[in-house]
Amino acid sequence: MASENPLTIVTCTAPVNIAVIKYWGKRDEELVLPLNSSLSVTLHQDQAKTTTTAAISKDFKEDRIWLNGTEVDVGQPRLHSCLGEIRRLARKHRSTDDGDTPPLSLSYKVHIASENNFPTAAGLASSAAGYACLAYTLARVYGVEGELSEVARRGSGSACRSLYGGFVEWHMGERADGKDSIAQQVAPESHWPELRILILVVSTEKKLTGSTAGMQTSVETSALLQFRATSVVPARMAEMIQCIRERDFPGFGQLTMKDSNQFHATCLDTFPPISYLNDTSRHIMDLVHRFNAHHGQTKVAYTFDAGPNAVVFTLDDTVAEFVAAVSHCFPPESNGDKFLKGLPVRPVPLSDELKTTLALDPTPGGVRYIIATKAGPGPQILDDPHLHLLGSHGLPK
Amino acid sequence: MASENPLTIVTCTAPVNIAVIKYWGKRDEELVLPLNSSLSVTLHQDQAKTTTTAAISKDFKEDRIWLNGTEVDVGQPRLHSCLGEIRRLARKHRSTDDGDTPPLSLSYKVHIASENNFPTAAGLASSAAGYACLAYTLARVYGVEGELSEVARRGSGSACRSLYGGFVEWHMGERADGKDSIAQQVAPESHWPELRILILVVSTEKKLTGSTAGMQTSVETSALLQFRATSVVPARMAEMIQCIRERDFPGFGQLTMKDSNQFHATCLDTFPPISYLNDTSRHIMDLVHRFNAHHGQTKVAYTFDAGPNAVVFTLDDTVAEFVAAVSHCFPPESNGDKFLKGLPVRPVPLSDELKTTLALDPTPGGVRYIIATKAGPGPQILDDPHLHLLGSHGLPK
Repeated sequence: MASENPLTIVTCTAPVNIAVIKYWGKRDEELVLPLNSSLSVTLHQDQAKTTTTAAISKDFKEDRIWLNGTEVDVGQPRLHSCLGEIRRLARKHRSTDDGDTPPLSLSYKVHIASENNFPTAAGLASSAAGYACLAYTLARVYGVEGELSEVARRGSGSACRSLYGGFVEWHMGERADGKDSIAQQVAPESHWPELRILILVVSTEKKLTGSTAGMQTSVETSALLQFRATSVVPARMAEMIQCIRERDFPGFGQLTMKDSNQFHATCLDTFPPISYLNDTSRHIMDLVHRFNAHHGQTKVAYTFDAGPNAVVFTLDDTVAEFVAAVSHCFPPESNGDKFLKGLPVRPVPLSDELKTTLALDPTPGGVRYIIATKAGPGPQILDDPHLHLLGSHGLPK
Repeated sequence: MASENPLTIVTCTAPVNIAVIKYWGKRDEELVLPLNSSLSVTLHQDQAKTTTTAAISKDFKEDRIWLNGTEVDVGQPRLHSCLGEIRRLARKHRSTDDGDTPPLSLSYKVHIASENNFPTAAGLASSAAGYACLAYTLARVYGVEGELSEVARRGSGSACRSLYGGFVEWHMGERADGKDSIAQQVAPESHWPELRILILVVSTEKKLTGSTAGMQTSVETSALLQFRATSVVPARMAEMIQCIRERDFPGFGQLTMKDSNQFHATCLDTFPPISYLNDTSRHIMDLVHRFNAHHGQTKVAYTFDAGPNAVVFTLDDTVAEFVAAVSHCFPPESNGDKFLKGLPVRPVPLSDELKTTLALDPTPGGVRYIIATKAGPGPQILDDPHLHLLGSHGLPK
């Protein structure tokens, strides 16, 4: 970090992750400790990433942050908690150091700019990528090394899973101080190169319950959630890790669907109930089950987070046929050429037999578009200074 | 029973019931023994009933049955099981008798005709009223007295709850032979005269999973269902009985909604998942919660069975305002004068404040019509021979 320059600046990117064993509910709100362990697949950053630039300077008067070009209040609790935690780690790191490092940067104020390359409508958890990127970038600019789960978690629980690529487990941990509630890579993205991921963006106008408030109400009111966390998830974590290690798609897919359904079941068991799935979501679920029944095995699997959009897992030999099935059941209303984004998928015709099996009434426009992607790596440092989101004066370019 | 006449004929009616603590899942398929106890409100027969005529004669060559005017196969398992059970009881009754009763009728074949006064679209469980009526009518024609839960249950589990009026508990029982799995009245319909019931008939084209097959899949695949049956329902049964005894509407209403939601949560936790609620169902749930929030207390409560139609409980002082709220959120598409059926409800204007609180986008036609009713009595014998559904030759009139 250029010590002559009054500005120390770093830019990093971090990925979105999609849980296949779901996190829902905290056992400690303050430390963001979950009721159960969870497991996710990191999406490739070509299709979905956050880019964050952090700059520190003795000339900055206060901490400031810009999200997607708009300045926001740096005092909001989750941001404040992340910043406090990284500075605490930096201080600790320095104090256990041999004393050679100049203590200059710790008291410096920071400017942060962050942008997403994916639309909000995609319903991807932007806070996970955002806080993972913030933690990773702040660590670099303040010279902090080692475990960043706690910093990311303070912003958004599932953000700790975006600190790694491929397949990532977030151990719930047992300690009251949360030191063992950390993310860990189960397998890198290169482990299962045939895996493909489709994000089916569903039309909706409904205002949804935010996940932070939603999971809090679930913890308070759903007996099924407590049972799930203690009696169902532990065995599912072990089973899911085994399916991933063995690249067992039918096992992986079935468990992914079951766990998505059980998460939404606990939302419905919350009082007042929370509904993230809509009729189009349920049509997609039905389509996936019919598609699999047609093939006599689980070739495609859905999962849904806190919204109606589906994330679909499949393998490279099935992705073209499934995209054709989605186009058949949800004919694009317009911009047919933009219905598919991301990785290229070759068009294939759908067999009459499969069309008959699907036998769903076509719902034009029910799915607005599809983003095709795959598993990808964890956070990256960008070396090219042109990619900084802050200029030489520490303000957005 | 006219012993000179070759035809012994009886006509009875039986009501529909709506569970407020839900039955879902059998621990014994053959004997129709449930995983958990359940509790229901019997609807008034003015709005929903089954009428059944049974006739026996030495001249009949075979058992025959007509449902809503169409002859159906009397050999189908559930009908066969009911008929077998009533004849077993009749035989037992005779053998323990003092021997005075002529044994004539036991070997006689029976003709049965059954009709509903409510449309299938109302989504009311016609099998409960149907099998309760069948059990009750057959008992009268074969001279069987006493407990009929087992006969009704053989046809459809929840049918045993339609054997009584008012508020009815179905004890799950503990015995392997099911002798203690019987229905019992908690309170008669006269106990809570202010209670009103609205059936909101929702538009749907979707083919639904039948409840018999659905609950079987749930038992096999949903861990949440097992937990609910053993660890949640027992306390809820006790709480619900207390709410009814005390006529505590907020307590009754909240528990009714929670139990409906938990039942549908276990359906979603089934694999493949079962969805009975659609977007209109969820809009109704949202409307009820907003209506209650506006009033600062639970004045209205929903429950949903194996379909998208809502059954709403409220008190007589609230029914007019809630009907106005439903009409506001789901403006009748046509036949406005037929939007409300059953008990009269006076039109009232909706306050601007409540309209603002509801703040739902109006969904014209989402609710097709409303049937207003209340709690009612159990099965009845019709004395007027003009009301028999079978003529003097034992065939449908």
